[in-house]
Amino acid sequence: MASGKLLYAQSGGVTAVINTSAAAVIDTARRHKVKVYAARNGIIGALREDLIDTSRESASAIRALAHTPGGAFGSCRFKLKSLDADRAHYERLIDVLRAHDIRYLLYNGGNDSADTSLKIAQVSRELGYELACIGVPKTVDNDLAVTDCCPGFGSVAKYTAVSVLEASLDVASMAQSSTKVFVMEVMGRHAGWIAAAAGLAQRHPDDAPHVILFPERPFDQADFLARVKATVARVGWCTVVVSEGVKHPDGRFLAEAGSRDSFGHAQLGGAGATIAEMVKRELKLKVHWALPDYLQRSARHIASKTDHEHAWAVGARAVELALDGHVGRMPVIKRLSDAPYRWKIEVADLTKVANREKMLPKSYLTRDGYGITAACRRYLEPLIRGEAPPPFAGDGLPTYVTLKNAAVARKLPDYAI
Amino acid sequence: MASGKLLYAQSGGVTAVINTSAAAVIDTARRHKVKVYAARNGIIGALREDLIDTSRESASAIRALAHTPGGAFGSCRFKLKSLDADRAHYERLIDVLRAHDIRYLLYNGGNDSADTSLKIAQVSRELGYELACIGVPKTVDNDLAVTDCCPGFGSVAKYTAVSVLEASLDVASMAQSSTKVFVMEVMGRHAGWIAAAAGLAQRHPDDAPHVILFPERPFDQADFLARVKATVARVGWCTVVVSEGVKHPDGRFLAEAGSRDSFGHAQLGGAGATIAEMVKRELKLKVHWALPDYLQRSARHIASKTDHEHAWAVGARAVELALDGHVGRMPVIKRLSDAPYRWKIEVADLTKVANREKMLPKSYLTRDGYGITAACRRYLEPLIRGEAPPPFAGDGLPTYVTLKNAAVARKLPDYAI
Repeated sequence: MASGKLLYAQSGGVTAVINTSAAAVIDTARRHKVKVYAARNGIIGALREDLIDTSRESASAIRALAHTPGGAFGSCRFKLKSLDADRAHYERLIDVLRAHDIRYLLYNGGNDSADTSLKIAQVSRELGYELACIGVPKTVDNDLAVTDCCPGFGSVAKYTAVSVLEASLDVASMAQSSTKVFVMEVMGRHAGWIAAAAGLAQRHPDDAPHVILFPERPFDQADFLARVKATVARVGWCTVVVSEGVKHPDGRFLAEAGSRDSFGHAQLGGAGATIAEMVKRELKLKVHWALPDYLQRSARHIASKTDHEHAWAVGARAVELALDGHVGRMPVIKRLSDAPYRWKIEVADLTKVANREKMLPKSYLTRDGYGITAACRRYLEPLIRGEAPPPFAGDGLPTYVTLKNAAVARKLPDYAI
Repeated sequence: MASGKLLYAQSGGVTAVINTSAAAVIDTARRHKVKVYAARNGIIGALREDLIDTSRESASAIRALAHTPGGAFGSCRFKLKSLDADRAHYERLIDVLRAHDIRYLLYNGGNDSADTSLKIAQVSRELGYELACIGVPKTVDNDLAVTDCCPGFGSVAKYTAVSVLEASLDVASMAQSSTKVFVMEVMGRHAGWIAAAAGLAQRHPDDAPHVILFPERPFDQADFLARVKATVARVGWCTVVVSEGVKHPDGRFLAEAGSRDSFGHAQLGGAGATIAEMVKRELKLKVHWALPDYLQRSARHIASKTDHEHAWAVGARAVELALDGHVGRMPVIKRLSDAPYRWKIEVADLTKVANREKMLPKSYLTRDGYGITAACRRYLEPLIRGEAPPPFAGDGLPTYVTLKNAAVARKLPDYAI
């Protein structure tokens, strides 16, 4: 493998700890005297030759990066299509890499990114350009194949469980004369991993959450309402966690219920609003509902220490794999035991990861479909364990870093995408 | 003043630190060898003679209470009317207190509770029942008169500022190809204190939040949309914080925009959904929105240390005032200086607090009405300063306590309310 530079790119929705992986990449590469460029706004920046020179960032900035949420170099939702359809893009990418003597490409993303990494590796081989192309796993959805869990998920899981626990203490205090049902919508369009994590808040029977609605289970309105009604009668109040991806038996998303404002415009909103409205209308109970939206995946202040450690480890290992000349690989998390929780990094072929989705196993849902099993809890609990709070400044806010993100001088003509 | 027991009651919406005041009350009373009862579900429990014997709780449970959100004994939204209208209730209250030799009543709430405390004090005097009736300030809305700030507000303020900071880092990372406008709805039906606290996240010009919508300012749709459009053009994205109480110039709440679902039922939701839908429809920009709802006022994990200290101090001082025979008083927070932030507890007459509302001063809003001034920042910043995280258990969740809440044996006939 020739010496050269390393390009790091973030892809897809960001997480509370994707920058932890970025910091690990930069820190590890620096130890190996390898210069790191970052693509501004992910693959879009790579195509436009809009590159960032991370060597302009101080060591302290990179340390702060490890506890800063969001994507420090910018990420994007831009999916490269097949080699046939988008060959020009792939060839342009290789041109950009060649122009800057970039010999290592680290792509930090989910399923799509694994697929893109593979295609880039294939084109570089075809064009005779020596390139170590390595995936770095990341997604709050926890739906990546092969790896035991995905960096990013543990922190959104911890945020979700803590939030359900706290808000439910509030609801319980007031239920005698105020809100009886509290609904919280969580992310997860296809897989109910985040909804399942809410179940960790339930330490004893009749603790919240009392009902979890998973995208894996078709929604049964009558059964759901009966469950809520019975819970309010027994406990005095009820907390419902609903995944944004919950569907009717006919496959339509609950969120597509067809709400319109007074002008006839379709309403934003989603599963949480729909469930809250339904409970209010059908059971005549006072309802409150919450939609944490981006708050859940950016809540670095309540990040999981386990997740933080995973994110650092995959970033550091990805650099070592690249420098060792691996192509089309991804460092993944291998669980060695649940209790005590032990894990190590293994190396997977991207072909085993790309374009697959890891769904919630059936054995993780209770028979009635409204809760999680002991097996699910054994799997999830280590992932939210430990705290890794950012340092706070004198003004009461976390000390998140904004990088200089100095541009690398361009060498190629403009390229329109 | 005769010796006797102390009754503590929580009132209205709970906060992240109302239990801190409760713990301070119990801890201080124990040091003075005074037995503390708590009213189950606030004044409702006092009327029903549904009392809790806190002497059954261990010292470690009371220590844990100090970092547990929600209202540990239950709170309620039940407003006693005037002495003429509700005299029977007031007299029943005195009967209950007399039956249990309760000589100190501590009522932990907001404006309404201050008024109720005064009326109870008046009836006890009329009936010749010696009672020290003391208010303990609490409200996330920060709208209590006389006190410089309200315990409960500093923590929701910190949660709000941190959440806006974090979610905006997420939005900034993705804006190139995804969400351009992020909307977050915060509590505050009449006064924009919580919305103002979001402004603390803005450390530099063009930092988020770019637009804050206060209930104090009539909403101007055209001007607002122009502001959002210009921000997206200049910064690349825009974060909007909207108070639930924002109103149209004609006084209607924005949340009453008349949204209906496909069955013609009025939609739940509110100002956040309305603003998000408006930006999407009028500016054709990709929008996400968040509604933290109860999460914001129960987020003990990100409580402000200043707020925690205030909450403890007013609880402890209230006991001392009661034992010293004060009637119709409330310990309040007096600010001595902004920088360094210094404060002390003073004593206010409840007549000065009851039924008043402290609005956001005009000088705290920028001339355009979309941001906070330096004066506002000087006032708010000390209130979110410092962290006071709860201890976490091995399962990754905070160790919040559930009290035994053992009932005191009843001595009186049932009373219907």
